[in-house]
Amino acid sequence: MPSDVQKNLQEKNAAYAKQFTQGSLALPPAKKYLILTCMDARIDPAAAFGIDLGDAHVIRNAGGSARDAHRSIIISQQLLGTKEILLIKHTDCGMLTFSNEDAHGLVVKNLGPTAAAEIASLNFHAFPDLEAAVKEDVETLKKGATVAADVPISGWIYDVKTGEVSQVV
Amino acid sequence: MPSDVQKNLQEKNAAYAKQFTQGSLALPPAKKYLILTCMDARIDPAAAFGIDLGDAHVIRNAGGSARDAHRSIIISQQLLGTKEILLIKHTDCGMLTFSNEDAHGLVVKNLGPTAAAEIASLNFHAFPDLEAAVKEDVETLKKGATVAADVPISGWIYDVKTGEVSQVV
Repeated sequence: MPSDVQKNLQEKNAAYAKQFTQGSLALPPAKKYLILTCMDARIDPAAAFGIDLGDAHVIRNAGGSARDAHRSIIISQQLLGTKEILLIKHTDCGMLTFSNEDAHGLVVKNLGPTAAAEIASLNFHAFPDLEAAVKEDVETLKKGATVAADVPISGWIYDVKTGEVSQVV
Repeated sequence: MPSDVQKNLQEKNAAYAKQFTQGSLALPPAKKYLILTCMDARIDPAAAFGIDLGDAHVIRNAGGSARDAHRSIIISQQLLGTKEILLIKHTDCGMLTFSNEDAHGLVVKNLGPTAAAEIASLNFHAFPDLEAAVKEDVETLKKGATVAADVPISGWIYDVKTGEVSQVV
């Protein structure tokens, strides 16, 4: 039997598909850029960042971590032709609220020693300072050999209280 | 000077922020679920999957890879309380069009030996069969020690031509 969450997906998607008219878009992003942002539930990238369907790749993970997006960024740029990166972190991010040790401690406590061993070497990439984290991740991308030197990379903060983005770097 | 892509973000976001009224949402997802899907430009998860702002984490990477979302899933579930996972891959995915060797070859060719060395051990998680990839990733999540045994995990395919999702598992 479908869960409430699955039922919601099926019902809302049926309504979406009924009025869907954009089935002919090409695979590579039309505007050749990618946005890297957080998985946070309060961010709707298409609406908040003005992305029309088909225009940009959107990579999302916990914190909008550049290191964690390594594989996806290479694929986006080398195989699907994107040529610009916008990194957008946000205020009140969960990553500001815990340390790497906290996260490992919770896994031991909630999931047990097998899980803890499975992720023993995992870096959760939590960060204590939002603006510093934006700058650091932009630097990581710029220094990394896997983004071409001529790719513009900008760093932004989205304010979940006001809906506004502001540029950091 | 801002690029066209940066100008688009600034202008569209200014209009979004002007009418924004949802600044009081809580950090943890209200409906306690997470969607893992692809970064593909033709997917608008909020609209296509019926996610209201604040309801769910949305993790996106190349192919909607479960292995690549390891860190984010643990944070979503252990630190921010999500209790259900919907994995949604899609038709005409870029990951169906190349092999791990192709990707490594492109990095050598386009970015040179330093970049190639930096990612020598990287698995790009390309897949030749869409439905099999959905099943395999759901299995990966179910078997992994880092998702609790009682978390429902379902697997879906989104059709980029019709806008419809269908359940695989």
